[in-house]
Amino acid sequence: MNNISIILFGYGNIGKAFHQRLLKQKQVIQKKYKAKFHFDLILRSSSYLMGDKWVDSKDTLNVFKKFIKKSPNKKYLIVDCTASKEMYNLYLEIKDIDACVIAANKVPLSLSHNKYMDLMSHLTKENIFYFYEATVGAGLPVVKPFIDLLDSGDEIKEVVGSFSGTLTYLFSDSKLPFSKRIQNAYDMAYTEPDPRIDLSGLDVARKCLVLARLMGLNLSLEDIEIENLVPESLRDIELDEFFNRLDECDKKIQEKEENAFKLNKSLCYMGKIFQSGIKVGLFEVEQTSSFYGLKGTSNLIEICSNFYPEGYLIKGPGAGVDVTVCGLISDIFKGLIILK
Amino acid sequence: MNNISIILFGYGNIGKAFHQRLLKQKQVIQKKYKAKFHFDLILRSSSYLMGDKWVDSKDTLNVFKKFIKKSPNKKYLIVDCTASKEMYNLYLEIKDIDACVIAANKVPLSLSHNKYMDLMSHLTKENIFYFYEATVGAGLPVVKPFIDLLDSGDEIKEVVGSFSGTLTYLFSDSKLPFSKRIQNAYDMAYTEPDPRIDLSGLDVARKCLVLARLMGLNLSLEDIEIENLVPESLRDIELDEFFNRLDECDKKIQEKEENAFKLNKSLCYMGKIFQSGIKVGLFEVEQTSSFYGLKGTSNLIEICSNFYPEGYLIKGPGAGVDVTVCGLISDIFKGLIILK
Repeated sequence: MNNISIILFGYGNIGKAFHQRLLKQKQVIQKKYKAKFHFDLILRSSSYLMGDKWVDSKDTLNVFKKFIKKSPNKKYLIVDCTASKEMYNLYLEIKDIDACVIAANKVPLSLSHNKYMDLMSHLTKENIFYFYEATVGAGLPVVKPFIDLLDSGDEIKEVVGSFSGTLTYLFSDSKLPFSKRIQNAYDMAYTEPDPRIDLSGLDVARKCLVLARLMGLNLSLEDIEIENLVPESLRDIELDEFFNRLDECDKKIQEKEENAFKLNKSLCYMGKIFQSGIKVGLFEVEQTSSFYGLKGTSNLIEICSNFYPEGYLIKGPGAGVDVTVCGLISDIFKGLIILK
Repeated sequence: MNNISIILFGYGNIGKAFHQRLLKQKQVIQKKYKAKFHFDLILRSSSYLMGDKWVDSKDTLNVFKKFIKKSPNKKYLIVDCTASKEMYNLYLEIKDIDACVIAANKVPLSLSHNKYMDLMSHLTKENIFYFYEATVGAGLPVVKPFIDLLDSGDEIKEVVGSFSGTLTYLFSDSKLPFSKRIQNAYDMAYTEPDPRIDLSGLDVARKCLVLARLMGLNLSLEDIEIENLVPESLRDIELDEFFNRLDECDKKIQEKEENAFKLNKSLCYMGKIFQSGIKVGLFEVEQTSSFYGLKGTSNLIEICSNFYPEGYLIKGPGAGVDVTVCGLISDIFKGLIILK
């Protein structure tokens, strides 16, 4: 039985919970998958853990490179729990070893289309499987079933989804002014430290890009129409000032909500992927739609294809530590099978 | 690159479509999964295909045993597209070879609990992975994500589902008498050749058992409360006579539907899996429920667990050749990775 070496990048909420969960389930998993694994190296932006103590270092990439150079014959599960763009370059450094990359980080997947193609051909050439279930819908089974459909000869016609649990939450209770809902979501840690990141729609666009590229669409972020819910005047100011002027977010949303309600519709921030392109923004949805009155921090993703002309849908929490770790671990199982 | 030998049991609608789809996608799949495969043997109940001609034979089991004895060093994907109980014994004959079993057949999984445990320990001992995504929800990603959740340390609290596309169809249009709906469903080939098989609820019970056993519940079919929609007087008569007396099915259903509608509810034939047992039958569902007014031939499956306390759900066609083949092919991908 091989001893598979796990190298983990990122040790925030997700990385830490992933580490703990995998250790907790270690016996069960090793027995079932007949593969031994061990956390050999955990890297943060300014320190790393090898053995049992954290060592300060600013040069994560070099620590990693040295480590795999020392044992080129090991088998590696490289797990990316960062949100860093730099990981793109790191992926390209993985060569001449037996490895799988498993990622919750969607940034390397949503850089320019050329970079995407370069990354994919590098990984193919190096025989490295790259799994990233947790990048869309957290632990919900979205990405792999999507790939399986395509590989089995299906053609995806359209994907529409509420891809952001945070934005679902912001539109699930329209009794409060929008600014108040943002404040509440922030207070409950449902948003990023800067809520404008959620409100910009960029994260939704990235998720759409992950799926669209699987469909073979030649698109990049700049090709996507993204509706930014932050008024232009609040986009480039300090975070404190943004919070002070939060009520400037209200007017436009209030108008849109009143318009929708007059027509018995509700608002949902959605990503829509067509063969012709991607739209990301607020949409009015009919009462008969599955997206009508979506509550909590749900994701809802609906896929229409040749084999599923009426579509199939999946709905559940699309954010949160526990469920994101589920997505990562389901990829770990695939990695263990491949490397064992 | 290994040449993986596919042995296919069953060549009805599903088996044939599976065979054709896999051949159509062969180049794409072989390239992506870096594994070659070939259909070496296709077996029906009274004939088999080896090379390019069908040979009559009543002794499928023996043909299979001889075949694998001849080439014990090959790697095998054994695909079960039958609905036969006999396959259980055949699975037990698979030994001393490198193989995966992939099944749309839920019968071997839903025999007595002892037989289930014997089968599972045989397959574990022989290092044989057994995948059966297509047994529940056809191509919808249900079984593997369910297993992944459990392996990653989740505890499933409750599963409720509309597991039969046929029964969804029968309750989606209550304007017609129930007997007329059965006739229509039969005419459109939505039912089994004998619709009483669908109406009995046995198939739903089997699907529940597949999931319940994954949860570790020690249950067998006889432990399940199953509501049979066929009046007792019609259960043991000839099919022709059943169709002549079809309107005897109406009264009870009409009463139930009237009761439900008075309370603004709708009826849904569901399977419910609790830690304490399984119930299969007609349930009244509230307007606020995802199951309310379910249409077409949908399946809807809702899973509540520790990691998903509010549940997550998946909805889409749970029957049909195209989508069932999707379930089988997603398992083939796993098999190719394991055997390559």
